[in-house]
This record gives sequence, structure tokens and C-alpha cells, in this order.
Amino acid sequence: MSVATRETAGQAVTLEDIERAAERIRVLAKKTPVLRSRLFDQAAGIQTFFKCENLQRGGSFKIRGALNFLLSLSPEERKRGVVTFSSGNHAQAVAIAADYLGVAATIVMPTDAPKAKLEPTRAYGPKIVFFDRLRESREEIAEKLAAETGAVLLPSFDHPWIMAGQGTAVLELLHEYPELDAILTPLGGGGLFSGTLIVAKALRPGIRVFGVEPELASDWHQSLQRGERVEIAPPPTIADGLRTTAPGKSTFPVVQALADGIVLVSEEEIKAAVRFLLTRMKMLVEPSGAVAAGALLASKLPQGIRSAGVILSGGNVDLDVLAAICSEA
Amino acid sequence: MSVATRETAGQAVTLEDIERAAERIRVLAKKTPVLRSRLFDQAAGIQTFFKCENLQRGGSFKIRGALNFLLSLSPEERKRGVVTFSSGNHAQAVAIAADYLGVAATIVMPTDAPKAKLEPTRAYGPKIVFFDRLRESREEIAEKLAAETGAVLLPSFDHPWIMAGQGTAVLELLHEYPELDAILTPLGGGGLFSGTLIVAKALRPGIRVFGVEPELASDWHQSLQRGERVEIAPPPTIADGLRTTAPGKSTFPVVQALADGIVLVSEEEIKAAVRFLLTRMKMLVEPSGAVAAGALLASKLPQGIRSAGVILSGGNVDLDVLAAICSEA
Repeated sequence: MSVATRETAGQAVTLEDIERAAERIRVLAKKTPVLRSRLFDQAAGIQTFFKCENLQRGGSFKIRGALNFLLSLSPEERKRGVVTFSSGNHAQAVAIAADYLGVAATIVMPTDAPKAKLEPTRAYGPKIVFFDRLRESREEIAEKLAAETGAVLLPSFDHPWIMAGQGTAVLELLHEYPELDAILTPLGGGGLFSGTLIVAKALRPGIRVFGVEPELASDWHQSLQRGERVEIAPPPTIADGLRTTAPGKSTFPVVQALADGIVLVSEEEIKAAVRFLLTRMKMLVEPSGAVAAGALLASKLPQGIRSAGVILSGGNVDLDVLAAICSEA
Repeated sequence: MSVATRETAGQAVTLEDIERAAERIRVLAKKTPVLRSRLFDQAAGIQTFFKCENLQRGGSFKIRGALNFLLSLSPEERKRGVVTFSSGNHAQAVAIAADYLGVAATIVMPTDAPKAKLEPTRAYGPKIVFFDRLRESREEIAEKLAAETGAVLLPSFDHPWIMAGQGTAVLELLHEYPELDAILTPLGGGGLFSGTLIVAKALRPGIRVFGVEPELASDWHQSLQRGERVEIAPPPTIADGLRTTAPGKSTFPVVQALADGIVLVSEEEIKAAVRFLLTRMKMLVEPSGAVAAGALLASKLPQGIRSAGVILSGGNVDLDVLAAICSEA
């Protein structure tokens, strides 16, 4: 395990870490717009504020964590290069950030990664190593590569620097709209959700924060019910960014301590949300990025919440997947 | 023919008319955002400024002209109600504006109007009369209805008040970005293009302004070559908003006098532009609305133009049409 990971493992992330990350990532990450839609508010019955990370550089929020990680390394560590693993958006983010900073990057990707995520990643020139998502462990492959080459392992979510970076999206949202009753984020490995929980509860102790995951990928829901990290089989959900099989070691305790609940959405609810955002708001959001909007459209929040911030976490979707989603309407 | 049409037929539209229209329509029309895309600029080789009328109320620029027309009528005329004809976006705009102002509206629509345009129109409660686009004349049906009921005929493009209303989009664009080398708009009946020409050439005599129409619907291109309005057969282009069969009587002389050129785009170029805007900019633009972006991506402008304003005129597209466009990639 790399120096960077050793030094910070188990270290709690604070509001100050997230504020410092926000300063750091300004060189490359966009302050994304917060959009409203009268039609969505009518359909959901809740005033909704969309934080549009689908319009972020690289098409998802992942640049925030990747950039914060790379900029937190020492110059010596950056020289050794990084190894990471990802189904797509994190891969593209690391490729962009590493290219910008002149850091050598090796990326372990599943053979069935969406083309919309693979091709732009490749364009930034990292070394790409493929693995079989159903038979091999991407963590093991990445750790082996890191050990062999001396490169720093850059986790896709399970690290304080990543969590702090991802928390900057909601830091921006709450600076712009401090009075929200609730915040909803998609929930895969928990990097975005844990960063969000830390910043939101520090700035607004009374705010309610929910993670949203597909019914087909309910590792978080099961883990919180059992009180320990549960591992599930590779989930077949259309939300390819939320196909993680277990909560992260660093993210789980944060979620356990601070989350107000996990909301589950069906595949149909996810696709309906993609279609609503597309046809009514004219905006492309990938299935993983639309789960929180899906939860609102399906009225899955507890009573009494009148305004909600929703992270639209990404917009990278293959055209054949999008064609199928449109055809099913 | 109604009082309103008689009084203003043939009357020249001025910059002042467009500025007054801009004041008038503020009650309901949005000042739409102007968006940039590094990826588009790289692909087109031109700095491009997108005026996002796909994000306009009703999903297209048409609310500008419809609202300006209704607000220019006398209270007595408004009481008589209006009759209009449209393949969709103008219909929806008239329905929204008439509902807002409490004016009775009858709308003549083709039987094959896109559902994405028909359904939202219906929701605002106008009377809808269908006609067969290939066999009947919508103008004649609308004129007959107006004569029978005493309602005011509200043309979809061929009227100074409509032209002035549509010109407000580029008025906003040029206030925000006064230094553009060129402007491109989609070209159907010519309401948007003629309004654009008047405002752009008045504010910036040196600016170059191009209308873009499908190769399959080249009535303007043919008309300008011949020096008179040419009528074509109902064109089978995917750009359903640009299926007009001839230039308008009021719009033709303006275009003849002021336009720098007509650019033709193929069906493939239109679809490629829809896909580019969708996957790279995460934005839904309908085929008719994407023709000007298609012209830039296909490098169809004369040399020497370094910056261009592009009107993305609408975002209302049926999901089955979108699925087909996505599947063809």
C-alpha cells in the first residue's frame, strides 16, 4: 500500500478538508450551475435544486476527488505515477487530472465499461488495463500493479482525499442555496455521499441527507440494516456507476453516523427520471446520475420536505443505452 | 383577413419594433442562457456561442413571436380570440401565451405533428383542428375558421409582429456578446431569420448572418437563386419545424435584402449535430433546432469567421425519433 494511503487511512474528513479541497481543485474543476425546473417541481411536489455535475469537466463529479487526491500528493509521489480502477467516470476524471498535472496514470477498467466513458478516457493518454468485472477483483489488480511499479494507488472512492474532493459539490450548492430542507445524492461506493454528509451536517446540522441506490444494487441498504459492510454479487443495474459490490471501509462509518436514510429506486424509476430530465429539462443525465431525481419523481422522501438539492452526478451514457431508454417510453 | 393583419401587412420591421417587443414579452418569455463548449469549439474550429432557445418556455423561441403578437392586439381583438396553424412549436407557444393572457385560441395542426409538440399544446386547453399535411392547406383552413368565427388570424411566421418577436432572441445575444463575427439561425418560414437579420444588421452592420435549412427543404435557397418565392413539395426532412413549403411573403424581401447566405445541411449532418449536442454538451436540441450547429460541425461557413452565435431554436423531439437518431450512431 502506498505512502499516501497509509498516512491517511481511517483519518476523519472535516469541513475544513473539504473547504481546502474546494480551493485546490479550482484550477481545473468547474463550479457547475444549479438549475431549476417548474415542470419537475410540479411533478415531484418538492422545490428541487439540481446541482449539474453532468456539466462538470469530464461529464461527472469525479474530477473533484481525483484532482484533490493528485494535488494532495507530494511532488515525489506524483513522479511515481498513479494506478486506479473504475467503471468509467472516475477513470476519465483521473485521466484528465493526471494529463493536466503531467502525472503518469494506469487505469484498470472493466471489459464492459460504457464506450461513452472508455473513449474519452483513452483520449487523455493513460495506460488502460482491462479486467473481467464478473470474475476478477479490480482492487487486487490495481494493488498488484501499484506494488510492481511503485505507483501510488488512487482509490475510486475509499479514501479521505477522495471523500473531501467529492464533498465540494455540495459545499458549492449550500453556499448558493443555504436553506434547503434536504439533499439527495446517488450512492455507489459512498465517496460523494460521505463527502456530502460531512459538509452538509457541518454547515446545517438540521438538514436531512439521503443516499439513493438502485434496488438491484442495495449493498448500502443491506449494510446499514445489518450494521456491517455487506458484499453483494455484481449488480445488473442499468446505473453502471453504482455497480459497486460493497460500501467502502472509509465511507461506511461516515454514512452510518450521519445519513438520514437510504432510498431505493427501481430500474423503471431510474429510466423514467432519465426521460423526464431529457424531454422536459432538455438535459442528458446518465442513469447513475438520475437516481436521486428518480427518487423524487417517485415520491420516496418522508413527508415534510419542501425543498431538496439533488446531485445530477454525471451525463456520460452510451447512445445505444440511451436509445433503449427512449424506446421503452 | 383580420384587422391586425390588414393594418400591418407589408410594413417594415425596425430595430425599435424589436426592442419594444423585447420589453413586451418579458412578462412570460425567458432570457435564455448563452452557453459555450470547449469540445464544440475544437470540433467546429470556430468560437461558438449557443443561444439556448431549447430552454425557452414551451421548449422553443416561438413564444417570443406569439406573445408579441397577442400583446400587440387591441383588447377588443383579443376578446375575439385567435386562430393559428403550426406543426408544433408555434402551436405550443400560442397555447401557452393565449392561456396566460386569457385569449381563446384555435390551432390547426397536421395529423402527423410530433407527440412531443402536440401533448404539451393540448395541456394548455386550446381548440385543436387537425389537417392532412400532404393534401390540405393549413393556411386555407385557418383563414376559413377566422372568417367564420371572427377570430384574428395569427400567422406562424409571416407577419411583422411575429418577425419582431422572434428578433428578440438575437437582440439578447448581441447585448451579451456584441463582437460576434457571424450569426446562424435555422430557416423555416423565415420569421426567426428575418427578425435576426433586422436586429443584427441594425446593431452591427458588418456582422454576417446566415440561414440554415435542410437540403431536403431548400425552398429558400431555390427562391433566392431565382429571385422569387419558390414553392416546393412537402419536404420529408427529419427537421419537422422546417417543413414549410415556401418563404413567407413578409419575410422573403427582408432575407433577400439582408442575408449573407443560405447554408444547406444534409439529414446526416443534422442528426450528427443532435448527437454531438446531446453526448458532449448534455443538451437536448430537436433536429430543426440543431441545423445551425450542424452547419458549423460540417465546416460550411466561408473562411475568416472566427466567432459565431448559433440559435438552438428548440428542444421538443419525440422519444422514438430520438431513439432512432441515437441508434444510427
